[in-house]
Amino acid sequence: MNLLLLEDADFIAANRARLEGRRLKHLHEVHRAEAGDTLRVGRLGGSMGQGHLLRLDADMAELEVTLDQPPPAKLPLTLLLALPRPKMLRRVLQTVAAMGVPRLVLLNSYRVEKSFWQTPFLEPEAIREQLILGLEQARDTRLPDVLIEKRFKPFVEDRLPALAADTLGLVGHPGDFPACPRAVERPVTLAIGPEGGWIPYEVEKLQAAGLQPVQLGERILRVETAVTALLARLF
Amino acid sequence: MNLLLLEDADFIAANRARLEGRRLKHLHEVHRAEAGDTLRVGRLGGSMGQGHLLRLDADMAELEVTLDQPPPAKLPLTLLLALPRPKMLRRVLQTVAAMGVPRLVLLNSYRVEKSFWQTPFLEPEAIREQLILGLEQARDTRLPDVLIEKRFKPFVEDRLPALAADTLGLVGHPGDFPACPRAVERPVTLAIGPEGGWIPYEVEKLQAAGLQPVQLGERILRVETAVTALLARLF
Repeated sequence: MNLLLLEDADFIAANRARLEGRRLKHLHEVHRAEAGDTLRVGRLGGSMGQGHLLRLDADMAELEVTLDQPPPAKLPLTLLLALPRPKMLRRVLQTVAAMGVPRLVLLNSYRVEKSFWQTPFLEPEAIREQLILGLEQARDTRLPDVLIEKRFKPFVEDRLPALAADTLGLVGHPGDFPACPRAVERPVTLAIGPEGGWIPYEVEKLQAAGLQPVQLGERILRVETAVTALLARLF
Repeated sequence: MNLLLLEDADFIAANRARLEGRRLKHLHEVHRAEAGDTLRVGRLGGSMGQGHLLRLDADMAELEVTLDQPPPAKLPLTLLLALPRPKMLRRVLQTVAAMGVPRLVLLNSYRVEKSFWQTPFLEPEAIREQLILGLEQARDTRLPDVLIEKRFKPFVEDRLPALAADTLGLVGHPGDFPACPRAVERPVTLAIGPEGGWIPYEVEKLQAAGLQPVQLGERILRVETAVTALLARLF
């Protein structure tokens, strides 16, 4: 937790907040904070700044906060991701939030096992929890939007062309394709497939929606690693 | 497991291998393989190719293998990493092997907790196990060399200058430093700090050994994510 992220419900006055639960525990056990300490804080969806610990005991922390810095810029990106397996999903959500992705679409694909859609990690509260861990890690305050699209074809045919319009549209796909471009200066729509990759029909559909296949070399990377590698190269 | 990695002890003839244990279980439960199937295989430290499953039952698999393709190229890189916490260490070892790092130095730093050096995950067999998972993921056969350096100063003063000679030496470090370069065409020595970063004394020592600080932006990334992001940008 490199940023203590405060939610509206934590505020008891315009510049004063109270904490319990996970974040209080973290202050005690990891930060080993004491009353009088100053911490980096942010307000969810808002600004960042300093928090002065007025009080810290076993049940509660109280802070006086000064929020005078903007959060870091987001990437100009819409990321489409074939739904990963549940354990990977949680880590990917953290990574996506930490890297500054503003909009994530979790999409079905032929190689996504049907059971993955049943995971409790797809509940809105579970998604939010992982995104917040990513924001705390990277020092950001703004939650990415996460869209869940259980049907590939209607999404890619009916909605993706508008989402991808006026962006550089890319599909990460191994094979004899151009290398993923570097340091692009314009908005990007990037689709990353499941373990085992998109099937040819899906690549064709994504191409028809305006996304061009690009590759990252012959090594097959886990989804989380591929996301990070592609974003680090693109921006 | 995108590559079935065979070890010398698995071979019962020049082109025939037998498997038990984890890999056999994986063939049954994940690949749902059957006798007659053809699989991608590699020989640890050697070539890659095809394996024809002659026999597959509950106790044993037997394959006829043709190894006629070279493994993918490694990155021209020596990676120095402040020892991560044990859980992260395991994932980082997989990532390092998957990304094609040929040489990893696990190094002490002021902000590495002493207890991290006690983990059983630093045993040679435990390290090897994680590296092999990374090779299987990425389809590579060659294990990275892993050096363990428990003392920062003697390593950085006495050995690092020779290791870093004739390479582009870089230290990943947040702050007012040049951005990490992109698409470099020469060998690199890259040092990545612990959670919380190198202390100024360590940065000075690394600079004296020929490594220049570079940064990746204001977001603080987990070690595993930072490794992937820096390598994807550099190469």
